[in-house]
Amino acid sequence: MRIAVDAMGGDNAPQAIVEGVLLASKDFPTIEFQLYGKESEIKKYLTNDQSNIKIIHTDEKINSDDEPVRAIRRKKQASMVLAAQAVKNGEADAIFSAGNTGALLAAGLLIVGRIKGIERPGLLSTMPVIGSDTGFDLLDLGANADNKPEHLVQYGILGSFYAQNVRGIKKPRVGLLNNGTEETKGSELTKKTFELLSQEESIHFIGNVEARDILTGVADVVVTDGFTGNAVLKSIEGTALNIVSLLKKSILDSGLKGKIGALLLKDALKNLKDEMDYAKYGGAVLFGLKAPVVKTHGSTGPEAVATTIRQIHTMLESQVVAHLVEKFEPKSQD
Amino acid sequence: MRIAVDAMGGDNAPQAIVEGVLLASKDFPTIEFQLYGKESEIKKYLTNDQSNIKIIHTDEKINSDDEPVRAIRRKKQASMVLAAQAVKNGEADAIFSAGNTGALLAAGLLIVGRIKGIERPGLLSTMPVIGSDTGFDLLDLGANADNKPEHLVQYGILGSFYAQNVRGIKKPRVGLLNNGTEETKGSELTKKTFELLSQEESIHFIGNVEARDILTGVADVVVTDGFTGNAVLKSIEGTALNIVSLLKKSILDSGLKGKIGALLLKDALKNLKDEMDYAKYGGAVLFGLKAPVVKTHGSTGPEAVATTIRQIHTMLESQVVAHLVEKFEPKSQD
Repeated sequence: MRIAVDAMGGDNAPQAIVEGVLLASKDFPTIEFQLYGKESEIKKYLTNDQSNIKIIHTDEKINSDDEPVRAIRRKKQASMVLAAQAVKNGEADAIFSAGNTGALLAAGLLIVGRIKGIERPGLLSTMPVIGSDTGFDLLDLGANADNKPEHLVQYGILGSFYAQNVRGIKKPRVGLLNNGTEETKGSELTKKTFELLSQEESIHFIGNVEARDILTGVADVVVTDGFTGNAVLKSIEGTALNIVSLLKKSILDSGLKGKIGALLLKDALKNLKDEMDYAKYGGAVLFGLKAPVVKTHGSTGPEAVATTIRQIHTMLESQVVAHLVEKFEPKSQD
Repeated sequence: MRIAVDAMGGDNAPQAIVEGVLLASKDFPTIEFQLYGKESEIKKYLTNDQSNIKIIHTDEKINSDDEPVRAIRRKKQASMVLAAQAVKNGEADAIFSAGNTGALLAAGLLIVGRIKGIERPGLLSTMPVIGSDTGFDLLDLGANADNKPEHLVQYGILGSFYAQNVRGIKKPRVGLLNNGTEETKGSELTKKTFELLSQEESIHFIGNVEARDILTGVADVVVTDGFTGNAVLKSIEGTALNIVSLLKKSILDSGLKGKIGALLLKDALKNLKDEMDYAKYGGAVLFGLKAPVVKTHGSTGPEAVATTIRQIHTMLESQVVAHLVEKFEPKSQD
C-alpha cells in the first residue's frame, strides 16, 4: 500500500502533514508514504529511522489562490501534480492533500481520471449525526455546479458503495435531499431523480429527506446536486461556527460567574465540540475516480491528517474502487 | 389599517393567535383586526371591550396536512380563504396566518394575486446576523422550486425594497448566494444571474456571497433560487436546533456539576437563544403580491404573533407594496 502525499498543501504544511504522516505510520507500518515537496523543509520534521517514508523533492507548489485548472496544467512540477502523476503511473495507490480544493479536483479528474461509466465523480464527506457515533455521507459537495438526474442516481450508487465498504453499513439507506418529504415535492431535477432512484435496484432508496433532518440521521447517504450540496455544507458549517463563537463570547461577557460556569461545563462543551467535529471521519473524497483522491481542510492539524490516512487505508483495504469499477465499467466479452 | 387574521391556523390556534392579537392591539389601537374562525372558540380568549377586534365566523379550516392548492379551491369557507378573500375584495389590507404554508402561498397567488410585472413572488424572511441587532433578508425560501435568472433579479429588487422600507436600511447590500465569491464561480443559473444583477442599477449589488458567511452579515439581502433557499434555511434551522439540544443533553449528562454550571451560565445561554431566534423579526412574507401576506411558524406563541403584526404594520405604514407597484407595473400613458 503506497500513499502519495502532497506535503506542501494546506496552511500548516509541511509541518502538520509530516507530523500527521508520522502518527499514521505508527499504526500502519506497512504503508509506504511518498512525500512530495521541498526536501529540506520536510526533513526538519523527520528523524532517520522512517524507512517507510520516502521524500520526492520538488520546489514547485500550488497555492491556495491559484486558478485550479490553470495551476494543474502549468505547474507540472508542483507537489500535488507529481503526487497525482505517481497514482496515474501506478507508482502510488492513492493521493492525499490539504491544499487547494479546486486544484485537487482538477488533478483528480485530469490526471488520475474517471472510472469508465461514471459521468461525474462526486465530492463526498461523512458528516456527523448529532448524538450518535455514526455519520452520514453527503454528496455532491460541489465538484459539479450543474447536475442532471442521471448524475444524482450515480451519486446514490457511489454513496452507497462508500457507506458499505468504508463505513461498514450493510444496507445503507439512501435519501434524496428535497424541499419536502412527500413523493410529489421538488424541482424538475429532484422529481426526475426521485423516479430514477426508485427504479435503481442496486441501492436501498428511502425517498426524500429534508436538510433540517439530515443531522439527525434520517439517512446513511444523502444525495444532492453539487450546487445545493455545497450550500448545505457551508450553511451547516457557518451555523455551527457562529453558534460556538457566540457561546464563547456570551460566556466571556458574563464575567466571573460565566467563567466558573464554563469551567464546570467544560466536559459538556468539549462533548459538543467532539460531536460536531466531522474531521473525525477523515477528509472529503472525490469519488468515482480510478484511485482514492482525498482532501482535508487547509487548516488541518496532525491528528486530522492521521485520521484521513486511516480513511484512505480503509478505502484501499476494502477495495471500494475496484468494486466501483466492477459495477460501472462495461464488462468485456470473454 | 385593517388586518385579516386566520385565527384557526397553527398548532396553538386559536388561543395563541387571539392572545397575540390582543397584545398587538395594545400597541396599535387604531388597527382593525378581523378574526376569521370559529366564533365560540375565539370568544373564549376575548373580553367585551375590544371594539377594534371583529370576529367573522366560519366552521371550516385548512389543516396542516391538506394538499395546498386543492384545499384553497375546495374549502371555500375556510378561515384562511375568507381572510384572503377579504384582502382581495378591499375589505382588509393584509393577511396573517400561522397555518399551512403551502396553502397560504396558494391563497396569496390565487386569491390576493401578483403585482403586474412580478413573475414569481418570493418567500422572504429576515434572519439573524449573529452578534448584531440587524438581520438579513433571504429569498426565495421555497415559494418556487425552479427559477430563471430573471426571477432572481426580481428577488434582488424585492429584497432591496423590503430592507429599505421595512427594516430602514438606506442602501441595502444585495448579495447572490453562490458556491464561491469569485465572479466566475457558479452554476449556469448563478452565472447568468450575476451578469444581470450587475447591470441592474436600481439596487446595490455587491457580488457573490457564500452560505458560510451569510449569518455574519456580509449582505443585507441574500438572493437565491427557491430550492437552494429552502435547503439553506432548513440547514441553518436544523443545525441550530441540534446544537442546542445536544448542549442541553450534555449539560444534563454531566450531573450536578453541569447543572450548577448551567445555572451560572443562564444569562449566556439565554443570550444565545435570543440571538438565534429569528421570530424576533416577524414572519415570512410572500413578497410581490398586491398586499402583505405573512406567515409565522405553526408552533408560534402570542409574543411571536404580536411581533408579526408589528411587522405587517410597518409594511402597511411604509407603503412598500405601493412602491413595488410603482416600480413594476407598466406606467399608464396619461
